[in-house]
Amino acid sequence: MGAAACLGARARPLSRPNPAVGCVIVRDGIVIARGWTQPGGRPHAEAHALAQLAPGGAAGATVYVTLEPCAHRSERGPACADVLAEVSPARVVIGMGDPDPRTSGKGITRLADAGIEVTVLDDAEARESLAGFLVREEHGRPHVTLKLAMSLDGCIARKDGESRWITSEIARGHVHARRAMHDAILVGGGTWRADAPRLDVRLPGLEERSPERIVMTRGPAPDGVRAIASPKEIHELSDVQYLYVEGGSQAASAFIEADLVDRIEIYRAPILIGDGLRALDDIGLDRLDHAHGRWRMVEQRQLGSDHFAAYQRV
Amino acid sequence: MGAAACLGARARPLSRPNPAVGCVIVRDGIVIARGWTQPGGRPHAEAHALAQLAPGGAAGATVYVTLEPCAHRSERGPACADVLAEVSPARVVIGMGDPDPRTSGKGITRLADAGIEVTVLDDAEARESLAGFLVREEHGRPHVTLKLAMSLDGCIARKDGESRWITSEIARGHVHARRAMHDAILVGGGTWRADAPRLDVRLPGLEERSPERIVMTRGPAPDGVRAIASPKEIHELSDVQYLYVEGGSQAASAFIEADLVDRIEIYRAPILIGDGLRALDDIGLDRLDHAHGRWRMVEQRQLGSDHFAAYQRV
Ligand SMILES: NC(=O)c1ccc[n+]([C@@H]2O[C@H](COP(=O)([O-])OP(=O)(O)OC[C@H]3O[C@@H](n4cnc5c(N)ncnc54)[C@H](OP(=O)(O)O)[C@@H]3O)[C@@H](O)[C@H]2O)c1
Ligand SMILES: NC(=O)c1ccc[n+]([C@@H]2O[C@H](COP(=O)([O-])OP(=O)(O)OC[C@H]3O[C@@H](n4cnc5c(N)ncnc54)[C@H](OP(=O)(O)O)[C@@H]3O)[C@@H](O)[C@H]2O)c1
Repeated sequence: MGAAACLGARARPLSRPNPAVGCVIVRDGIVIARGWTQPGGRPHAEAHALAQLAPGGAAGATVYVTLEPCAHRSERGPACADVLAEVSPARVVIGMGDPDPRTSGKGITRLADAGIEVTVLDDAEARESLAGFLVREEHGRPHVTLKLAMSLDGCIARKDGESRWITSEIARGHVHARRAMHDAILVGGGTWRADAPRLDVRLPGLEERSPERIVMTRGPAPDGVRAIASPKEIHELSDVQYLYVEGGSQAASAFIEADLVDRIEIYRAPILIGDGLRALDDIGLDRLDHAHGRWRMVEQRQLGSDHFAAYQRV
Repeated sequence: MGAAACLGARARPLSRPNPAVGCVIVRDGIVIARGWTQPGGRPHAEAHALAQLAPGGAAGATVYVTLEPCAHRSERGPACADVLAEVSPARVVIGMGDPDPRTSGKGITRLADAGIEVTVLDDAEARESLAGFLVREEHGRPHVTLKLAMSLDGCIARKDGESRWITSEIARGHVHARRAMHDAILVGGGTWRADAPRLDVRLPGLEERSPERIVMTRGPAPDGVRAIASPKEIHELSDVQYLYVEGGSQAASAFIEADLVDRIEIYRAPILIGDGLRALDDIGLDRLDHAHGRWRMVEQRQLGSDHFAAYQRV
């Protein structure tokens, strides 16, 4: 299931509006096919994997798929549960059931009715690889990652606004790779005006993966850029599954205060700034113990001289 | 030499006013004796190790010692170079020469004159284990560690001063262990008045190791506590080899601005505070690129939910 989740993660973010599903087909302990949701959402992961096999090739095999196979036929293709039932695997292992109550369980029933052994897990890796889809199902908004590049003492710029550069080139390259995993990047109006940031992906081969740019401003949208007027307007970004919030301080604080951040990614340079622009301003915290138990470190690594750590909402 | 350095570190801080030296004696690849500077500075590490051997037991062996053996006889005991020469090891490996130009090289010469093979390294671990002694030799002041317990966004308290607790019990236990490695703890007058901190070591078995408490204040010293009126007055703390600066924000900034910090130890809790008291205030940084290349991460670990990282002056 871990391998299937990794494949699913490959589909991010281009699978939108569909979930980024991964699929592995195994026979006699050997992987015979691998698939993931294709750009635009079709073919689905199961179909992508099955297409690698000769007719009858899946008979008796075990299919691992991160999300319950869909049970509804659409004009874009047949239901995956039907397709799977037809090729007669011995067993289907599902990372998690479809959270949508309208379809949840139907894919499982269809497979079981076809005499296939079905196992439904609640797998953390599968869940993580589907985060954008799950947040939309549950909250009707994109999954939000807040990125902060700061000094050891928590500054994202000097007090005069100088912020180039806090982190090293390696860390900045990592940011570009992370951008390519998102559908849209948002900055506050202050950062837009101060830095005129390009907010694109400048990595060889990934130039086409630059996400849409969004500015948060109470004023009119800058030319040629989408704007929202408050954090909660991300609920209207129906085409965005993964949103990357790049600051600055006020924009970041507004998202934290509105409790609209699912993941925080911090790049920390081994420098001290002192009385610079702080990473966050007022976030409405009224007692220290209310700050605890909200975030959990889920990843960390060294990027050249900088330290990278990711925190997930508990 | 790494093992000798670890033994030397055991002597910290009780060896004061003497350096915390470590010594390992090896014959045929087997460690036959280990020593470190005893509390108060005597016996020296070499004598401590030799005392574990029967008369003649060191003949032909190899002695590893972190610092050049002393060559001056004092009323507290004979010179280590003489003692070593007498027991006739085949070889003495020295972590680093004595930086004091008045004695430097004399210990080496004495050993070589006695027909012992002498190797002098410039070993990083030996150097690190002798940091307090070396800083005093070079700068005439204690080695200074700045400790900061902060949130992810660089706050050491809420804006109303509430700072109990930012970090977990495990991290606070680690702080107590670190206190026991220092001769004195310093806080600013603000912290002294706000928190009335005990600044002691509350670890079973280490209660006796509570360092002296020092307050930095422009006013009179609080009752029963030593005070200094500015960071540079640490030059007068001639009985202190290792000083632990525990904040708050102004005191920490003053030490950083005065360039009197050798090591920074950061405990980072996975919480966000926002507009709290920042870890540092003005440190006189005039350009971002002047902040780079000064600090290097030398240690990190997870302490329960908190992350610990130590940085050394480059
Ligand atoms: N190191 C890093 O990771 C990093 C990243 C980004 C930026 N920075 C630095 O951060 C600085 C800019 O930060 P900043 O805090 O001054 O500005 P900012 O957060 O980028 O932008 C503030 C602006 O965002 C809009 N805004 C903020 N909260 C809002 C809300 N709740 N609803 C609607 N609009 C809202 C307003 O725009 P309008 O005024 O247009 O209404 C506000 O003036 C720059 O120096 C930049 O270099 C650093
Ligand atoms: N999380 C942590 O690691 C941590 C650690 C310690 C404290 N704290 C928190 O930090 C807060 C206190 O910090 P703070 O910044 O307000 O106060 P502070 O740094 O503890 O103390 C400021 C005082 O130190 C003296 N001082 C500062 N710079 C000086 C200089 N250059 N020369 C001589 N004296 C100097 C002055 O004392 P006089 O006014 O007496 O002249 C000044 O008022 C408290 O809320 C405390 O809980 C947190």
